[in-house]
Amino acid sequence: MFPVVILVRPQLGENIGMAARAMLNCGATQLRIVAPRDGWPSETALSASAGAANVVQQATVFDSVHDAVADLNNVMAATARPRQLEIPVIAPEAAPNLATAKTGILFGPENNGLNNDDLAMVNQIITVPLNPVYTSLNLSQSVLLVLYQFWQQQTTALAPKNNATTNLAAKKDITVLADNLGNYLTQANYFHPPEKAASMQRNLSVLLNNANLSTQQVQTLQGVFRALWQTKV
Amino acid sequence: MFPVVILVRPQLGENIGMAARAMLNCGATQLRIVAPRDGWPSETALSASAGAANVVQQATVFDSVHDAVADLNNVMAATARPRQLEIPVIAPEAAPNLATAKTGILFGPENNGLNNDDLAMVNQIITVPLNPVYTSLNLSQSVLLVLYQFWQQQTTALAPKNNATTNLAAKKDITVLADNLGNYLTQANYFHPPEKAASMQRNLSVLLNNANLSTQQVQTLQGVFRALWQTKV
Repeated sequence: MFPVVILVRPQLGENIGMAARAMLNCGATQLRIVAPRDGWPSETALSASAGAANVVQQATVFDSVHDAVADLNNVMAATARPRQLEIPVIAPEAAPNLATAKTGILFGPENNGLNNDDLAMVNQIITVPLNPVYTSLNLSQSVLLVLYQFWQQQTTALAPKNNATTNLAAKKDITVLADNLGNYLTQANYFHPPEKAASMQRNLSVLLNNANLSTQQVQTLQGVFRALWQTKV
Repeated sequence: MFPVVILVRPQLGENIGMAARAMLNCGATQLRIVAPRDGWPSETALSASAGAANVVQQATVFDSVHDAVADLNNVMAATARPRQLEIPVIAPEAAPNLATAKTGILFGPENNGLNNDDLAMVNQIITVPLNPVYTSLNLSQSVLLVLYQFWQQQTTALAPKNNATTNLAAKKDITVLADNLGNYLTQANYFHPPEKAASMQRNLSVLLNNANLSTQQVQTLQGVFRALWQTKV
């Protein structure tokens, strides 16, 4: 289950729309808005939400944080600046398992963030560790980075593994390629002095074996070597 | 060492400025821009970069991707849509260790992303796994999510994940190698039919760029290609 996003007193409709996009990027669709400065519904929010209009249209609006979190089991607050409150500060990757609690995340207004009253019902403060000399994020970027952590958690089982090794040619095909190249080069008197031939050939074999070649690329190189070799200058 | 960010044909100055902010959030400061649509310098970029103005002011501008990556050892392309090229696709957390290679990341233009020519010198395609039904990110959000992965890696002192990039040749040397091979093969009438010549040449460039070649191995291949080419059968 994905967390509910709660934008507290957001100022710009554009940021609300962009936040909705960031949510949907990360699989979250439940948006709540507390006391939007410019009222609701917002045409600006809708037009900025390109492709995520449903998230904006289905957003619910509340007068207070208190009301907005009433049905939730666990409330986090996203802030770069932990306050003088005794609330556990966690990094997003240490966030509680969402399967066990209906969770909401509070994001503060653009100008000055969440105040201590907003934090009164919060279980954890969540911070994204960024470059300490420059932590300034706009609202939608903040939503994106925090939600992305939850998305990663939910999808780790499905996450693509490094498939850089997919489709690598079989070693036997690379051996044939290296042997053919060796034969061409022997006839071209490339291997000199003769006592170095073996190590030169081995270096070429190492090169070809570490070149990440696919089966198709091995065929391509067979053609390339043959074409060069058959050329009459 | 943090990666170089290369914005390819960006359209809006505002996005360049926001990308600079996202970079600095994640500790990256080296920005390169290829053929910005609205020219350079850009007042819009500067004013959108609040707090990250240095990144924008020190950005360097290039006419082509080719020139922008010439001094790099390892080039990644951030794209949601892997193309029909044989380039390994990796998730950001599987990216090569930056300590061993000067790395750049290409980000495409807002409207239609990177094209196949842009990808010709790329070693890995990097994708952020997002909600498959909604992967639309704006440029600065894309920069933020990708760079954040590198930031996490650098700051969590993880063991190197991939040490295959040690001593990688500079891209400009691989370009010379690919060009020489292309010339030899043109004279060998390898490229037929003629209308396929460009894509055949590009496939060879992709192959050479992804072959993990060291500077020494590039020299070796120069000698190999020359020797084959000069052979009288």
